[in-house]
Amino acid sequence: MTDTAPSARPPGFGSDNVAGISPAILKALAATNEGAMPSYGADEVSTRVEARLSALFEREVSVLLVSTGTAANALALSVLTPPWGAVLCHADSHIENDECGAPEFFTGGAKLVHVPGAGAKIDPAALGEAARRNRGDVHCVQPSCVSITQASELGTLYSLEETAAIGTVCRDAGLPLHMDGSRFANAVAALGASPAEMTWKAGVDILSFGATKNGAMGVEAIVLFDPARAGELAFRRKRGGHLSSKMRFLAAQMDAYLADDLWLTNARHANAMAARLRDGLDGMAGVEIQGVIEANMLFARLPAPMCEGLLAQGFRFYTERWGEGVVRLVTSFATAEADVDRLIGAARALA
Amino acid sequence: MTDTAPSARPPGFGSDNVAGISPAILKALAATNEGAMPSYGADEVSTRVEARLSALFEREVSVLLVSTGTAANALALSVLTPPWGAVLCHADSHIENDECGAPEFFTGGAKLVHVPGAGAKIDPAALGEAARRNRGDVHCVQPSCVSITQASELGTLYSLEETAAIGTVCRDAGLPLHMDGSRFANAVAALGASPAEMTWKAGVDILSFGATKNGAMGVEAIVLFDPARAGELAFRRKRGGHLSSKMRFLAAQMDAYLADDLWLTNARHANAMAARLRDGLDGMAGVEIQGVIEANMLFARLPAPMCEGLLAQGFRFYTERWGEGVVRLVTSFATAEADVDRLIGAARALA
Amino acid sequence: MTDTAPSARPPGFGSDNVAGISPAILKALAATNEGAMPSYGADEVSTRVEARLSALFEREVSVLLVSTGTAANALALSVLTPPWGAVLCHADSHIENDECGAPEFFTGGAKLVHVPGAGAKIDPAALGEAARRNRGDVHCVQPSCVSITQASELGTLYSLEETAAIGTVCRDAGLPLHMDGSRFANAVAALGASPAEMTWKAGVDILSFGATKNGAMGVEAIVLFDPARAGELAFRRKRGGHLSSKMRFLAAQMDAYLADDLWLTNARHANAMAARLRDGLDGMAGVEIQGVIEANMLFARLPAPMCEGLLAQGFRFYTERWGEGVVRLVTSFATAEADVDRLIGAARALA
Amino acid sequence: MTDTAPSARPPGFGSDNVAGISPAILKALAATNEGAMPSYGADEVSTRVEARLSALFEREVSVLLVSTGTAANALALSVLTPPWGAVLCHADSHIENDECGAPEFFTGGAKLVHVPGAGAKIDPAALGEAARRNRGDVHCVQPSCVSITQASELGTLYSLEETAAIGTVCRDAGLPLHMDGSRFANAVAALGASPAEMTWKAGVDILSFGATKNGAMGVEAIVLFDPARAGELAFRRKRGGHLSSKMRFLAAQMDAYLADDLWLTNARHANAMAARLRDGLDGMAGVEIQGVIEANMLFARLPAPMCEGLLAQGFRFYTERWGEGVVRLVTSFATAEADVDRLIGAARALA
Repeated sequence: MTDTAPSARPPGFGSDNVAGISPAILKALAATNEGAMPSYGADEVSTRVEARLSALFEREVSVLLVSTGTAANALALSVLTPPWGAVLCHADSHIENDECGAPEFFTGGAKLVHVPGAGAKIDPAALGEAARRNRGDVHCVQPSCVSITQASELGTLYSLEETAAIGTVCRDAGLPLHMDGSRFANAVAALGASPAEMTWKAGVDILSFGATKNGAMGVEAIVLFDPARAGELAFRRKRGGHLSSKMRFLAAQMDAYLADDLWLTNARHANAMAARLRDGLDGMAGVEIQGVIEANMLFARLPAPMCEGLLAQGFRFYTERWGEGVVRLVTSFATAEADVDRLIGAARALA
Repeated sequence: MTDTAPSARPPGFGSDNVAGISPAILKALAATNEGAMPSYGADEVSTRVEARLSALFEREVSVLLVSTGTAANALALSVLTPPWGAVLCHADSHIENDECGAPEFFTGGAKLVHVPGAGAKIDPAALGEAARRNRGDVHCVQPSCVSITQASELGTLYSLEETAAIGTVCRDAGLPLHMDGSRFANAVAALGASPAEMTWKAGVDILSFGATKNGAMGVEAIVLFDPARAGELAFRRKRGGHLSSKMRFLAAQMDAYLADDLWLTNARHANAMAARLRDGLDGMAGVEIQGVIEANMLFARLPAPMCEGLLAQGFRFYTERWGEGVVRLVTSFATAEADVDRLIGAARALA
Repeated sequence: MTDTAPSARPPGFGSDNVAGISPAILKALAATNEGAMPSYGADEVSTRVEARLSALFEREVSVLLVSTGTAANALALSVLTPPWGAVLCHADSHIENDECGAPEFFTGGAKLVHVPGAGAKIDPAALGEAARRNRGDVHCVQPSCVSITQASELGTLYSLEETAAIGTVCRDAGLPLHMDGSRFANAVAALGASPAEMTWKAGVDILSFGATKNGAMGVEAIVLFDPARAGELAFRRKRGGHLSSKMRFLAAQMDAYLADDLWLTNARHANAMAARLRDGLDGMAGVEIQGVIEANMLFARLPAPMCEGLLAQGFRFYTERWGEGVVRLVTSFATAEADVDRLIGAARALA
Repeated sequence: MTDTAPSARPPGFGSDNVAGISPAILKALAATNEGAMPSYGADEVSTRVEARLSALFEREVSVLLVSTGTAANALALSVLTPPWGAVLCHADSHIENDECGAPEFFTGGAKLVHVPGAGAKIDPAALGEAARRNRGDVHCVQPSCVSITQASELGTLYSLEETAAIGTVCRDAGLPLHMDGSRFANAVAALGASPAEMTWKAGVDILSFGATKNGAMGVEAIVLFDPARAGELAFRRKRGGHLSSKMRFLAAQMDAYLADDLWLTNARHANAMAARLRDGLDGMAGVEIQGVIEANMLFARLPAPMCEGLLAQGFRFYTERWGEGVVRLVTSFATAEADVDRLIGAARALA
């Protein structure tokens, strides 16, 4: 899919969820369609997915599949905090800004409390302070868990050391740690570390392991490194309307995503396309690349005429939410080199 | 798919969700996979689905797609009742027994209050009484909406007159009416009435229009005959984690389901298979068919040796929840005539 | 107060909460008003109340005071069930009928599931069945706790043996047991058993210990026989807006209520007044006393002219909710003998 | 009470809720205790309170009494926002910091979103921006109401013009405006404006009218300037366990509080005591008064030896939450001049 010629319509860089389904995953849906299978996850594909993820993370994990990232995050948090808890997270996190209060809904009204830090990443020292705040004071919501995003909403990455530093604060404070891994694959591809190192070995207790943005039709795995919470989570998933009857088709997507390292191949491609974008835009008159580009998104300040010109030509991306003149360009497994080059060419013509 | 030879493994009659995906729907997924499309329902397939459902129901409707029936029901109810409301429903309804409290979750703690009636169907007179109970008494939850199931959990059907009688009670009491149409297609196929007659013309305000049990991979439409509630519902859907980013693939399923009357064809087949089962079992020594079989499920009391023998041979179905010796056999779009005949043959041998 | 002459206005038998404050309790409010005291329960009166209740129940208990019975019940249940739990209770219980869904609100949407039994009392065998139902089935709310009412809404009592039988079922099923003791004092007075025997020795884990109906202005104690849940409950109480800043005045009420056996004296008086009512009405033409009268309420079928005549004369009581012609007469610590005799006299004149 | 000699124990300046009950209010409790009265607010005292508040606010208002300020605030907000709403408030507000998530609980999980401004007061321009943010974006909680505190948690006051400016932004944005008036009396006393001018004439829709901190035992009035929301609020109050059965005793407190301008007399006294504190401390070596003192609290930076010395002598007040060395001193209706002078004397000795 990545080597097809660009369509007549200029390519979209608005989000990684404007892409379709990775061919291998689509094929797996068809292959799983033979005959009847037990419903609600009692099928063999679901079993295989759990085994695959256990292998990938180098320990026995419990897995619950859901169809959206918001569901994965909100359900994960719901087993980590009581309703009077504070979920410590960054002000720029997806759970804070982009889920219409789903975490509050699923947790029964817990409070998302911001912890500062540069580049949409929590600062461990600030976290330590927030984790101690108001402890035991009955008038105040109680620090109950921590949520970090890898890769972050700004495309930045927690290094292994940074994650471990967060993990240490969490362990010392007795707070479980959630990782929103909607773009976990992009982070793994960029860091070159193992999934185990990036999660439970660094102190992560529960991971939203995303697939939708990286080639699936719609499936995310809630991965519990401590299977003890799986029972409660199963009831919460059903109660939230997220237990698919024909679960085998969610499982089939995840199965194909994990097979033959598709997840990693797709993520590497997406990251490479962002790097290619950067290389093409960098140094162009008036263009300022923001930060270091490691994963599959690029923020850049563009001259107004260039920005307007690109949008007028039909290129799609978001603007204005990250400072004046700053645009966000997101690449995906489906972004073709030609798509990137077309944008670069158009930008150059407008520079 | 329905004319394939039975697999070596005896067919399952446990539920209509053990079946896979209708071939036309699977094909539609692939067809929708070309290129990028706007996410979150801003795509053209979603628009087409709303138009199709408006045509089918002979009026402008608002449509929100979700991936499970529990989500469709719970979300629909959440816009019909305040948290201190009573949702009037039958004790045998799916929302009461099989959704792990999802209606309570999505409504913020509303109470499901039982209204009696034969055959899992609400009695209009009893409904009238329940609708007036405790009105205005601040100590009591307040009747706020009504939910009926068509076809019911027992496979029974509300006739047009019966639905209209419920609708009249609702209108007189000022209570909106929800229909759980998880098997709506089977009901339409059985009654031969139009979707419009069976719903808004009889007083239904909001319908959970099921597709998953009847050939989709996983999609249900919440159909609002009064579009005024669509705005609130959109926020509730997102907040519940049920707004798919790649919505086009939910829409594609529904689109194919509605095209060429696939939904009706599939339902007619399922109903016919249940009738074939009945014809084959009826009159067999010791077998007592329960009630009239109209839709795609059959309840029958089987002699214990027959029941045990069938299960021992690998046939799958539920027992023991509907009275001693009573089994439930559910057919689907994917049930082959040969599957039915194989069961009948095995039963006869055990009679 | 009980020996005052009846007021010109006919006395009310509608509820035990139409009465005012027991004089000793009123006096305690004034006595507690000297000087400043720490707020939110850190005062010495609150400490004394906990000690008094520990002595009364013959073991160390944790106590949280709140101002209403609904708050006491709903908060107590909230620490016994998850949101996907089923609270097993009688269909005639206060939590089911008279709290506008407060249990659902405080538990995050748990479901109240009815267990049958005569006289508004749960049948232990039926409870055993309900406690096993749907265990582990992710589609169903899970039996999570049991709530019984002592004395019940019909004024009936669980004997020590009956409570213990319920307690045994609960222990076997691993379900904690809540007792709604809004009229606990009346039950103790009637049964002549010790508070310990009637509660934790019989398997009760948490008690709503009522005082408001029996002479307080507005205070109820949540008594935890297992202090382990007190921490969570403290947060839930605050979050529910039930942590009084000037807690010493709730504590002062409870302190005076417990001092000199006022609680028992008041309850004995109320019970005696109900017995006096029964003795006066029994045998009157057309009057049928319902059940055995043990606590402070009496249900009786009155001839229509008698009922209407009494209401016309200004006597106040509820009718029509317990069968045709059946009225409920409730006595309290403040009901004077003369009040009772006046009603009896008026009834006799109408017989 | 305010002219009594100071007790041997040094007086407390920790909070206005360490004080007891104003004598006239205590007397009213006793006076209301004669005979039976209808429960749940159907009594004549409750009716009189509503009339008094209507007169005070110069228009017909609906009033619901509750026993705590947290309940008043959380219930008020619950009728102003849907669960997916954003309650716009200051980061230093009581609802954000001191209610253990009660607003989130009562609103079904709405989000408190901070609006900046100096002195714990919302800046109108910043509010205008926040009110427009994310409007209609289904991924985001929706601005749904505004809450301001008068007097604020820092003892500062919104002038009439400032309140009106907030009110104008709210009206333009279609957002209802709540005022947390836990110390409303102190604000009225300080501003010398009429309650009507300070509330609905400036755009306030619903007011938490506090009495507990200013002399009541425990009662707060939710005052609705638009009675249309009173019906819903009545159900929410009951459901929250805040409908007192013996409501007459909450009403009696409020009745006495409003009679003879007790509320204003008490507040003026408290404010005067804060001013006396300021006058005494101002200019003392090393003491820095923070801001202008208008209501009944004073923030001041004290030299460490002075602060420690005062605490060591038994004076009570909070420290360390408002910057290094800053203490909060709160006065109340019960603070005697001698209490103030004693503190000043002790401070001087330590200076």
